[in-house]
This record gives sequence, C-alpha cells and structure tokens, in this order.
Amino acid sequence: MSQKRIRNKQLLTKVTNPYEASLLIKHGMTVATSGFTPSGYPKAVPQALARRVKDTGEQMKLFLITGASVGDELDGTWAKEGIIDRRLPYQTQNDCRDGINCGSIKYTDMHLSHVSQYISYGFLKKIDIALVEAAAITEEGHLIPSTSVGITPTIIDKAEKIIIEINTSQPLELEGIHDIYLPENPPNRKPIPIINAWDRIGTPYIPVDKEKIAAIVITDIKDNVRPLAKVNDVSQKMAKNLINFLEQEIKDGRIPKNLLPLQSGVGSVANAVLAGLVESSFENIQLYTEVIQDSVFDLIDAGKVKIASSTSITPSKEGLERFYNNISKYREKIILRPQEISNNPEVIRRLGVIALNTAIEVDIYGNVNSTNIMGSRMMNGIGGSGDFTRNSYISVFATQSCAKGGNISTIVPMVSHNDHSEHDVQIIVTEQGVADLRGLCPKERARAIIDKCANPDYKDGLYDYLERSLSKKKGHIPILLDEALSWHERFEKTGNMKVDAGKNSQKGNS
Amino acid sequence: MSQKRIRNKQLLTKVTNPYEASLLIKHGMTVATSGFTPSGYPKAVPQALARRVKDTGEQMKLFLITGASVGDELDGTWAKEGIIDRRLPYQTQNDCRDGINCGSIKYTDMHLSHVSQYISYGFLKKIDIALVEAAAITEEGHLIPSTSVGITPTIIDKAEKIIIEINTSQPLELEGIHDIYLPENPPNRKPIPIINAWDRIGTPYIPVDKEKIAAIVITDIKDNVRPLAKVNDVSQKMAKNLINFLEQEIKDGRIPKNLLPLQSGVGSVANAVLAGLVESSFENIQLYTEVIQDSVFDLIDAGKVKIASSTSITPSKEGLERFYNNISKYREKIILRPQEISNNPEVIRRLGVIALNTAIEVDIYGNVNSTNIMGSRMMNGIGGSGDFTRNSYISVFATQSCAKGGNISTIVPMVSHNDHSEHDVQIIVTEQGVADLRGLCPKERARAIIDKCANPDYKDGLYDYLERSLSKKKGHIPILLDEALSWHERFEKTGNMKVDAGKNSQKGNS
Repeated sequence: MSQKRIRNKQLLTKVTNPYEASLLIKHGMTVATSGFTPSGYPKAVPQALARRVKDTGEQMKLFLITGASVGDELDGTWAKEGIIDRRLPYQTQNDCRDGINCGSIKYTDMHLSHVSQYISYGFLKKIDIALVEAAAITEEGHLIPSTSVGITPTIIDKAEKIIIEINTSQPLELEGIHDIYLPENPPNRKPIPIINAWDRIGTPYIPVDKEKIAAIVITDIKDNVRPLAKVNDVSQKMAKNLINFLEQEIKDGRIPKNLLPLQSGVGSVANAVLAGLVESSFENIQLYTEVIQDSVFDLIDAGKVKIASSTSITPSKEGLERFYNNISKYREKIILRPQEISNNPEVIRRLGVIALNTAIEVDIYGNVNSTNIMGSRMMNGIGGSGDFTRNSYISVFATQSCAKGGNISTIVPMVSHNDHSEHDVQIIVTEQGVADLRGLCPKERARAIIDKCANPDYKDGLYDYLERSLSKKKGHIPILLDEALSWHERFEKTGNMKVDAGKNSQKGNS
Repeated sequence: MSQKRIRNKQLLTKVTNPYEASLLIKHGMTVATSGFTPSGYPKAVPQALARRVKDTGEQMKLFLITGASVGDELDGTWAKEGIIDRRLPYQTQNDCRDGINCGSIKYTDMHLSHVSQYISYGFLKKIDIALVEAAAITEEGHLIPSTSVGITPTIIDKAEKIIIEINTSQPLELEGIHDIYLPENPPNRKPIPIINAWDRIGTPYIPVDKEKIAAIVITDIKDNVRPLAKVNDVSQKMAKNLINFLEQEIKDGRIPKNLLPLQSGVGSVANAVLAGLVESSFENIQLYTEVIQDSVFDLIDAGKVKIASSTSITPSKEGLERFYNNISKYREKIILRPQEISNNPEVIRRLGVIALNTAIEVDIYGNVNSTNIMGSRMMNGIGGSGDFTRNSYISVFATQSCAKGGNISTIVPMVSHNDHSEHDVQIIVTEQGVADLRGLCPKERARAIIDKCANPDYKDGLYDYLERSLSKKKGHIPILLDEALSWHERFEKTGNMKVDAGKNSQKGNS
C-alpha cells in the first residue's frame, strides 16, 4: 500500500502514528488544516490530540484555521476538549458552534476567498503546523489532495512544519482531478488565466518543500459528510420558481441561451435547487462553484453537465459512496481548485457566474442575513456567498418564506445582521415566488418582496410596517427605528414573530 | 474652432443649438449621460431642456443614468423642474438629493462598477439617448472625452441616439489622457490586461457609430466642481493616524516597502488624507482610484507620484484652474479609464489596492454605513466604496469620531444602514486613533473600536452597551435588539445621541 500512496522513498521514514504526530502540536500554536465543508480534512491526528489532552489534562489552546467546515473528528473533538481558542473562517459542527455562541471560541467569520490572502499577506499569525489530508505523495514529494483543495496549497507553502495524513479511504483515482494554481502576492500578481470554467491552469499536485514534512500518518477514516434533507414540496417549489425565472431571462435576452456557469451554495436547499435542473431544458450546464453535492451527480448522470469546477466534493454519505463507485465517470466532469481560485472575484465576474445562495432572512429592502440568527447566534458563517454574490452576473438568494413551523417570517422589516447589502442582492426566491430587485428603488423593492416572496401569514404585518414607515416621509429608505428589529424582539420574547403574538411586547403601533 | 474640435467634416452638419438638441429628448425616455463626480457631464442641453419644460409646462419624466454625480446644470435644473422620475447610480446635488429623500425621485443606489454591466447585460431599460460631453471628435468620428470617462463608452455603444456637447472650456490637451477598454459580456469576457496601474490597454478615444449621432452642440460652460474643505486639525490627525498605520504595516512586512496602489474616495476627508502623504516618506506613489482631487496635484508637484489612474478629475474650482494651467505636466502622470475598469474587482484585487474610504457611521462590530443618515436620509450613495473595499489588499474607513458639534457619535452600537459588512472592513481610522480589526472576533472588534476610535464623550455609553449585551450571553455577536438602534432614535427625538440626553426616550436600561 505505502508504495502506491507514498512514492517518495525518503519520506517513508517520516511515517509515524497519530499520537506521535500529535506531539508536534503544542499549546499556543496556530494550526492550519486541509478541509472544505466536511471533505478532505485531517481526522486521525486531531482525534489523537484530543485523546491526549483528555488523558493528560495538559493545557492546549490552539488557533485553528481551515478552508471551511470540517468534521467531528477535528472541530468536534477539539471543541469538546476546549482546544480551540480561536477559529476561522467557517464551521458547521455543533460543539464548535456552541463554543462560538457561548463565547469560549473566538470566531472570525470571513469570506472564503480571503483566507489564503490573509495568510500570504501576513495578516494572521505565523502558521506553526499545516495538518493536511492527502490521497498520496508523489515521487517528487508533492501532495495529491483528496476530496477538497481549500487552503492547502497556501498553508503547505507558509507553515513551519507539515503533518500529512495519507487517507487510504480516498481513492487513488482522485489523482488528476485537482488543478493547483496560486496567484502571487501584489505587486507581482498576474491575471488568473481561466477563460472558461473547464480551463486547467496549474498542476495536478501541490508542490511541497520536503524538508518541512515532520510526520506522515496513515489512516482510513472516511469523510464524515453531512446528510442532505430529502427534496420536499417547498424546495421543489423554490427550484421551479428559480428555473422559471432563468428561462424567462433567457427568453428576454438577458442571459445567453446556454446559460452561464452556476454557483450553488452548501446545504439542502441549494442541493434541491440544482436537483430541479435535472428536469429542466438546460443542457451543457457549467458549474463554477465551491461545493459539489449529490445533485451534481444527478445532473452528470442525466448527461447535462459540461463541467463542474469546485474546491470540494461534499455529498451526503450515500452520495460519497456513489462518487467512489463511479469515480472514473464523475472525475471526467470535475475540477477541484484552491478556494482562492474557485471563489475568486476576478474569475467569477469574468465568467459571469449565476450565484445561487441561501438566506437565513431577507429584509423588505433587499438586505440579506446569511449568518446570525436573531442578529446574534452564529449558524455557520458567510462562507463563499459574498465572494460569489458581489461578483456574479446575477445574484439570487433563496429561502423558505417562513421557519420554525411558521413562527418566524424570513422576510422581515430589517435584517438583524447584514451580510449582503441592498447593493448586492438582485433576486429573491421563496416557495411563494420571485422578486426581481434590479433597478428598483427601496419602496419598489419592498413591495416586490412582500408581494412575491413573503408568507401570506406575514404580508399584512409587513405592509403595515412599510406603509407606516412611508407615512413618516423621512427619507430615501423608509424605516421606523423603534420597530425595525421589533419582530426579532417579539420572537425572542414569545417564540413567534406574528404581530398579534405577545401584544404587550409590541411597540410603536399606537 | 470647429475644425479642431470636430475634425470629421461630415459631422459638422449635425451641429445645432442646445434647444434644438433638447427636442430629441421626449417624455418617458431613458437618458444616459457622461459625467463622474461633477466632471465631464453635459451642461448646455440639460439646461435647455429644463428651460423648455419650465416655459411650456409640458410633461417630462425621464430615467436619468449617469456615471456618478453630475453638476447643477443637469441634476439641479432637472430636479427643480421635476424631470427626473428615476435616477441611478450616485448623486451629490442638493435638489436631486431632496427629491430622492422626499420620494419624488426613485433612486437606485448602486456599486459604480456595476452600472455599465447592468446596461450591457440588458438589466435596465433600453437607453434612448446618450448625452455626452466631449473635448473633441476625431476625423474618424470618434470621441475624445473631457475630464471624466465614467460610463460613456458603454452608453455610446448601447444608446439609440447620441447627442454630443463639445465643450471648448475643456482643453484639447486632454487628448491622449484617456484609455478606453471595454470588456465583452460573458461568456466571451477575457482577462483585463492591466498588470500595473500605469498600463494602457485601450484606445485614447471612444469608438462611435457616426450614424447614431443625432446632434452636436457647442458650449463653453465649465465643470461646476465642488469646493473642498480646508485641511483642518481633525483631518490632519486622521491623515497622521493613517500614515503611521501604513508605515507600521511596512515595517512589519505586511505591505511592500514601496506601498501598493492607493484608492481614495471622494470628498474633503479623503482629500485631506491624501494631502497628508505630501509630508510622508513615501515615494513613487501609485493611485488606482476613481477620482483625482486637489491633493493629487500636490503629490505630483512634490514629485511623489508615479501614476494616477482614475476615471475622473474632480478637483475644487481652484484645483481645476491649476490642472488646466499645468496640463502638460499633470497629464503625464494621469490615466482616465472607464469606471468599469477603474473600479473593477479583478484589477483592484490583482494590483492589491489599499482602499481608503469615508464612513457616515461605523458600529462596534465593524459594519459601515456610507449612505443613509439615521438609516433613512440618502446622503450621496455608495459610489465606488464597495467596489474597492471588498477587493482591496487592505480596506480602511475614515471618519471623524463625532459629528453635529458632538451630538452624533459616528461609532454606534449598530449601524442604521449597512453598506459594508463586518466581513469587508479591516481598519477604522478616526482622529482618536486606528482600530485594526483583522482576525478579531466581534467582542474584540468592539473593544478595539471603542478604545481606539470612539470619541471620549461616547466611550462610556458604548462600553455600557457592549457589557450589557455581553451579559446576555446569547450568541456570537452581542446585541440588545431593543437598544441597538436607540442611539439613532434618541438623536431623532432630542437632537443628541448622548445617553443622558432625553432620559425619557431611553429604553432597556432598567
């Protein structure tokens, strides 16, 4: 096995066990890892470290930098043992999220395209350890990544020491799927030469300075991917609304006939929206995106995909099996790039990517909250939604019109946290319909969003807010400062956003 | 005169007077004009149209699209006569602003780099008339723009008819200063080949389809530029704080020794900050920016400028005289590009532009309001601040720590309108100091901003809000939903944000 996976003989001497490798990690260090949405992250050494800390009770606080979210074996075991002092840029793990929300983990929520830049510009602390999963090491000592690329090329370049986890559950057929290109820092940066989503511009491996490799561990722990919710009625309606919108845009000559490359965010709604394209009339679909979920395999099986460019493969457990079992077929259609490239404003704007992301809530003026529930509780992070939204050809946000069994309206007078401003958001899709905000003034945007997207249970309340704020004639954006966040206040007090819920907590209606 | 200014003889037959040209503009039309921050906008025809409407009382409602702000002769006379039905993307004129804030003008506040795209993607209505100022027309019928480029190349390409104002107050020596390059629409877009701020990649003229030229008017009305406030103590302190920060960044190896191209927003504070560089140790300064104000001439005179790339020259009245009188010297250092290029994410990120913009208010978590006072009253618009901020090497926002004689704190618990999110804002500069937010969590950001940037009169109030919101232990971002906007409410009620102002309007302190 080892000879196929570790082809450089000199490096065989670096092979050790996870415990020994974990001893390289010391209190106070900055550890950067591979992994992007629980795919291709290190698993054995993080678990060994957590066990060690649990057993010895030693002090261990680390700054953990990843590409995006990683699995239980890293975020989970470390958060439970109190190992994570500081964390960026994105996460989806329960214990890690709890730590962030109770304040024990200092979290910086960042655009994913900025992470490698922050590291290579020197904006973050020096990286002591790069801890990365690989499918193999080449004869030259270079790295073949596994199911994600993320920030791995940058941290391999910048870290003091490198620990590699060779993961034998990751098929060797992954070799050749990656395209590694890292831009230089300004003032020496050149144009990124991607003209089409299918262009390969780099190497199929990550160059490594062999001298920095401190340990190699062999493991077979599979990516602990997350389940995807079944496509349900609501998500099907959203997908249908979106596809109708795109078809109309093509009819009206605003999008080229063969579409443009699509980006689709992470999660069940995004997956369902893409799944809706299987039944659509679109052919030769291009994806220029950051994650590949199950629906992309459906699209490939339906013969509808020209290319899927991404930085990670993040299907469900069943989807991952399906990928492994048909890897020779799927790999022909997939390119995995560093997240600095998959999420790069330059390429996204050049290709004219159609950005499809999901919102926690949207306000009537078109601002979007993607991150903090009730303005405070971190869900996952902004991820790549900002990278794509701001630079896209058309930016779309999808959300179910209500949540918590109807007790939360996802359309609100004012977002409680703002990740995407009115200047960046063009199309809102709910199961109710589609609001096209392009070229509208705030008052028009409000009417479009309430009319087309709000849940019927909340329309009256939203119109009431809008009309009363308009009657104040105060300025360009109608706002009632004392009521703008009152829907969230009401939910916090009564568990229900509806205007007639908890009457005595309502303000300003007199 | 005409032969130097209108070198294509055939086009001499199109010369007419402003009134006749104005007859081409009809009720309900979409009119797009040249002009970017009151420079290079049409003046004679707009005035003639306003006079005509005033005299005849005829119905005249137009959709007005410009590059950015334009002068009184256009926004002012048209707003006064109620001619502007709809307006985008940016303005600074009092009557126009009043119309927007009272709701009689439907205003869409857009990123300036998006305007040409919206037009060429077909997202806005068909442009009936392109009304553009030029310094001259070449023998081939091509246009030599004047003191700005803005969206002129795009609207010349897309409009049904073209009206040209040859402005003889604009020196012929402007010829050669412009660099006209327009990207194709996706999927045919190529890399923009600017590698250095001084690269010229296009033509010195705007190609024109002569058949579309419907009228040519000759005028000598000067750009009605805006005065710049004298550099005062407060702005000098801000400039000093910023320069100290940049020098320290260079010492710490985070910015290259010879800096990186600078962008500086429009207005007196931005002008003062750049003026501060005259006394700095920096040499060979590059600007990759959207406006050139007086301070750039100071820097050129001091021998400190390698190149100033922009889309407009927007000095004060005295600055404009100074430019005209020394044009052969200044033009060697200046390139004027279309705003789709000057503000392009691709180029900004590649060059590593250091973005310096001004804020109306900043909240303790690092969100910035650039547009709407008290969340409602439109000031000017977001302009290019988002284009530069999001894609910059380092994004800096400067603001005086208080306004209205101390009655407004520009550092607030929550911004009343959000143009630049916590994910985009890295450095806050006030006359009090500099807060470096890179890599910090929300709680740390809050302490940095209050400590370093807030006005002493407001520090206790901000800390009080922060500590009480932290004590709720609700989540990642400490927030008191019922108090977050209470400072703005208090100002609206009492004219003062201070916590002890209008005690009975304060909530949630019990």
